[in-house]
Amino acid sequence: MPTDMPPLNPPKRLLLGPGPSMVAPRVYGAMGKPIVGYLDPYCFQVIEEIQAGLRKVFGTGNEFTIPVSGTGSAGMEAAVTNFAEPGQTFAIFVNGFFSERISEMARRQGARLVRFEKPWGEIFGDAEAREFIQRENPNVVAYVQAETSTGAFQPGKAICEAAHEASAVVIADCVTSLGGMPVEVDATGIDIAYSCSQKCLSCPPGLSPFTVSPRAWGRLEKRATPVQSWYLDLKLLDGYYKEHKYHHTVPISMLYALHEGLALVEEEGLEKRWERHRRNHLALVSAIEKMGLEMHVAAGHRLWTLNTPRVPAGVDDTKVRKRLLDEYGIEILGGFGPLGGKVFRIGLMGSSSTEQNVALLVEALQKALAADRDQAAKG
Amino acid sequence: MPTDMPPLNPPKRLLLGPGPSMVAPRVYGAMGKPIVGYLDPYCFQVIEEIQAGLRKVFGTGNEFTIPVSGTGSAGMEAAVTNFAEPGQTFAIFVNGFFSERISEMARRQGARLVRFEKPWGEIFGDAEAREFIQRENPNVVAYVQAETSTGAFQPGKAICEAAHEASAVVIADCVTSLGGMPVEVDATGIDIAYSCSQKCLSCPPGLSPFTVSPRAWGRLEKRATPVQSWYLDLKLLDGYYKEHKYHHTVPISMLYALHEGLALVEEEGLEKRWERHRRNHLALVSAIEKMGLEMHVAAGHRLWTLNTPRVPAGVDDTKVRKRLLDEYGIEILGGFGPLGGKVFRIGLMGSSSTEQNVALLVEALQKALAADRDQAAKG
Repeated sequence: MPTDMPPLNPPKRLLLGPGPSMVAPRVYGAMGKPIVGYLDPYCFQVIEEIQAGLRKVFGTGNEFTIPVSGTGSAGMEAAVTNFAEPGQTFAIFVNGFFSERISEMARRQGARLVRFEKPWGEIFGDAEAREFIQRENPNVVAYVQAETSTGAFQPGKAICEAAHEASAVVIADCVTSLGGMPVEVDATGIDIAYSCSQKCLSCPPGLSPFTVSPRAWGRLEKRATPVQSWYLDLKLLDGYYKEHKYHHTVPISMLYALHEGLALVEEEGLEKRWERHRRNHLALVSAIEKMGLEMHVAAGHRLWTLNTPRVPAGVDDTKVRKRLLDEYGIEILGGFGPLGGKVFRIGLMGSSSTEQNVALLVEALQKALAADRDQAAKG
Repeated sequence: MPTDMPPLNPPKRLLLGPGPSMVAPRVYGAMGKPIVGYLDPYCFQVIEEIQAGLRKVFGTGNEFTIPVSGTGSAGMEAAVTNFAEPGQTFAIFVNGFFSERISEMARRQGARLVRFEKPWGEIFGDAEAREFIQRENPNVVAYVQAETSTGAFQPGKAICEAAHEASAVVIADCVTSLGGMPVEVDATGIDIAYSCSQKCLSCPPGLSPFTVSPRAWGRLEKRATPVQSWYLDLKLLDGYYKEHKYHHTVPISMLYALHEGLALVEEEGLEKRWERHRRNHLALVSAIEKMGLEMHVAAGHRLWTLNTPRVPAGVDDTKVRKRLLDEYGIEILGGFGPLGGKVFRIGLMGSSSTEQNVALLVEALQKALAADRDQAAKG
């Protein structure tokens, strides 16, 4: 009997794009374990262990630290919908795609947006960041710590200090940093941080680690208007995670995955894991520069997790990436927006960040670029 | 070295509550397959096959039929946030917990709510439903086809006809019916329907099957205000599912799970699957009534998927359920809201709906009730 649902037979990919990254084999194993109900005592045990593990990778003592039941974008929306109030001032540092997305979400909440813009790939200096916040006196400040669209790392200490002086709470997007480089929520002064499961935590996509400081929680208690989202209303989620009251049915197999991903972080050691990411990033940059390619982000401002070499003049990045996928099974992605066609985006995150993968990618990229030049020369 | 992340070792449960139900072994296998990226051609192949499979179980030709990247409650929120506009009239049939939740979501969107209420477990007759809609002349009508909190099935044909005469679109909650009993979106006239992965489709929780009629899509095109949710904005999701433009990173392992769950539906045959659910439901009801328990929902209005026998007088349902879990490893849940302590909620959904499970549950429930009575007699 012919069927419209042929058996699943996914191709083997080496995932070196901006995410998802390779899933650790043990994580696949965890997802095969029998599920339990959302009110089962075992479910709450798993959740508590996940919460403890997330506090460590976030670098926080925040009690409210949970996995939001959606992808990283759901975490972003949870941050914005709970803390952007209609008519209040929402200050945003815009230097890439994900800060644009935060702006769009805040606009939909009816917030009064004030934006400090820089070209994609640059970062904000301490003095100018402080000045912007002092001038605008916002209720909420948002910035992207690890900008997946550009590969730039934005330090946050000056931003958080100035924001707190203005009595604002600070949202930081840590989607591409959590588990791969220092996030340091408490030491930096971040009030609301979110990430995802499928990058440096070596899990499939589907969960968004999320944390809220007591300071920000106090803000939530005083909100004048109801949060527009019921699904992402943090006070309702607190009722489930703290008081075990039904809210929604948590995605238990994904929770098993995240639990295993966090166990792997614990076993490796968080600082050793950061160092592994740093080392492989430096090795890639060195090899890339030896090939004659230039990095888009200035040295010292680069993520260890997501690398953006510029596409050499005369090279069609789409063709090169298609060749990498078809001939080597390697996924990397290109730039978009103002960086469309101008950079490659190469992720070395979680299980994908290995010395061997750096070597494989460098060799394949060299060959793909050479083949592209050959083809161009033949006209 | 002591670790805060002990190995996962979930207890074996027979899941006969209102969801999650038992995951089919092949579905666990599917989640172990290697993931690919969200722009990988293979990802779009899997998605297209899922879309075709979902159209069949929903009983619809709707082009926009997708798995929303969240749990069933995210599907409900997607329905409400896209179709409830501030100030517009939103009519809701309220006879259980999930219609109350729809009301709460619509209220947060700023809609003008009009409610037709009935006691939990009753359903709405055709004439009174029509009259309500004609009187209120709403923009949107919502009802719960399969009410998980009561076990009642609400026919929708009269509701949909009256709604369309009033130029309203109709939202139907099919969370507990999809894949277990006829949903018949097109034949009924439903415009927006959503469900979940963890009930009659035998997958873990984490996805919400979702469909929108062309009539409702036209409404979306004419919306005067932006949808408050970016994550659940259907027009943006259409950009990903139809035009393959990046929106969010889809939960690929959960998509593999749903693909396998839908393949199982296809192999069994949808009508045979409905018949299996009906047969096991009738067997359970018959055994329950022989035990002297009374069903809460009137015959003819009962779901085949979720059964609500009344808790006998003098019995503490919490103790009985704890005994079932601790001694037999069987999860069922109790009632809540006005049905708190008054009914058991016994699910026979997807892989959980078998003759053997009916027998196991009936025997265990008999023993647990007897033990509870013994204990009560001993005082």
